[in-house]
Amino acid sequence: MPYVLIQVTKEGVTTAQKQQLIRGATDLLVNVLDKDPATTFVVIDEVETDNWGVAGESVSVIRQKYLQSLDQ
Amino acid sequence: MPYVLIQVTKEGVTTAQKQQLIRGATDLLVNVLDKDPATTFVVIDEVETDNWGVAGESVSVIRQKYLQSLDQ
Amino acid sequence: MPYVLIQVTKEGVTTAQKQQLIRGATDLLVNVLDKDPATTFVVIDEVETDNWGVAGESVSVIRQKYLQSLDQ
Amino acid sequence: MPYVLIQVTKEGVTTAQKQQLIRGATDLLVNVLDKDPATTFVVIDEVETDNWGVAGESVSVIRQKYLQSLDQ
Amino acid sequence: MPYVLIQVTKEGVTTAQKQQLIRGATDLLVNVLDKDPATTFVVIDEVETDNWGVAGESVSVIRQKYLQSLDQ
Amino acid sequence: MPYVLIQVTKEGVTTAQKQQLIRGATDLLVNVLDKDPATTFVVIDEVETDNWGVAGESVSVIRQKYLQSLDQ
Repeated sequence: MPYVLIQVTKEGVTTAQKQQLIRGATDLLVNVLDKDPATTFVVIDEVETDNWGVAGESVSVIRQKYLQSLDQ
Repeated sequence: MPYVLIQVTKEGVTTAQKQQLIRGATDLLVNVLDKDPATTFVVIDEVETDNWGVAGESVSVIRQKYLQSLDQ
Repeated sequence: MPYVLIQVTKEGVTTAQKQQLIRGATDLLVNVLDKDPATTFVVIDEVETDNWGVAGESVSVIRQKYLQSLDQ
Repeated sequence: MPYVLIQVTKEGVTTAQKQQLIRGATDLLVNVLDKDPATTFVVIDEVETDNWGVAGESVSVIRQKYLQSLDQ
Repeated sequence: MPYVLIQVTKEGVTTAQKQQLIRGATDLLVNVLDKDPATTFVVIDEVETDNWGVAGESVSVIRQKYLQSLDQ
Repeated sequence: MPYVLIQVTKEGVTTAQKQQLIRGATDLLVNVLDKDPATTFVVIDEVETDNWGVAGESVSVIRQKYLQSLDQ
C-alpha cells in the first residue's frame, strides 16, 4: 500500500512524462518491495518556480540569472 | 494541535462538500482524541487526474478506459 | 483514491483510537465524496512533543509550563 | 539536506514575500543546524481559503463572518 | 530539484532495499525529466502497521485477519 | 494559519536546536506575512540517514564514503 509523492517545479511536464513517472514509480515499488500495484498511489505535485527555493533563492530567480549570464 | 491533510482528485468537489470534510475531520479529532477544534487544521489538496496514479496509470487514463468500456 | 494524513502529537494514542481515526476518516470520504473505501488510505503520523511547535514554542515546553502553573 | 514546506492560505502572497520566506527558512537551517544552503529546499504551498479549515470551518467562511461582524 | 517521498508500511525494509528505492527514484527523475541527480532528494517514510489504514482498517488488523484465514 | 514542516536527517538535533527552529520559523511567518503565532504550527521530522537519499545514494553511504576519504 505505498504512497509516492513526486514534487517537481512546474516547468512544462507533459502528460506523457507524467505517465512515465507514475509507471516508473509503481514499477519501482513492485520490483523492490513486491508491493501490489493496485494499491500503489503516485501523486505528482507541480510547484510554481516562484514557490520553490534552493540555496536561498527562488527557482524563478535562479533561472533568470542563468539566462542573463548567457547574454554576457 | 492536529493537522489533517485530505488529498483527493480534482473532480468537482463542491464548496459544501469541502465544508463537510473540514467539519467531519475536525469532529473526528475532537471525538476520538479530545483535541481542541480551535487548533485543528484541515487542508484539502485537490490533485489533477493527470497527476494521480494508481496501478501504474493516471486517473485520467483510468477514467477514459472506463468510459470507452461503456461504449462497447 | 483519497489519501488522508493525520498528524498528531505522540501522547499515548492507543491502538483502539488509531482504529477509530482510520475508520472515521474512511467513512468521511465515503459519505461526503462517495469514494471507494478499498482505495482510501489513512496514515497517522505521531510527532514527538519536542518536534511540534505552536505559538513559537514546542508542545513539550507548553505542557511543562501548564503543569508548573498548576503548582502555584 | 533539509526540506522545508511552508503551507499558507492563498491570500495575495507577493513574489517579494515568497523570496523573504525562502531566504529566511534557508538562513534558519544554516544558522541553527549548520546546513549547506546549496542543498536546502524550501517549498511554498498556497492553499485556497475554501480548502483550509480551522475550528471546523473553512477560512473562507471565517473571513466572511469576520467581515459581516464589522458591518453590524 | 525534485523531492520524492516514498511512504510504505514498516515491515522489514532492508538497507539494501532502501538503497534500491533511492537509486531507482533518482534515476526515474533523471531519465524522464532530465533532472540533476545532485539536487534530487528521496525520503523514505516507514509507517507502523497500526498507523496505516486501508478500507477502514489498520494494516495490522488486515495482516492478522489474513493469518487467521490461513488457519481455518 | 500556517503550517511549516522542517524535514532534516536524524543526526543529533538537540532540544535547544529544535526550539530555535520552532521559534525561527514562527517569527518568519509573523514577520513576512503578519500571521498569528498562536495558529502557526511547526513540525520537525527527523529522518534516519538510511532513509534520506541525494544524488542516488543514502546519506548513510555518503557520510561513510566521506569518512573513508579522510583516512586515505
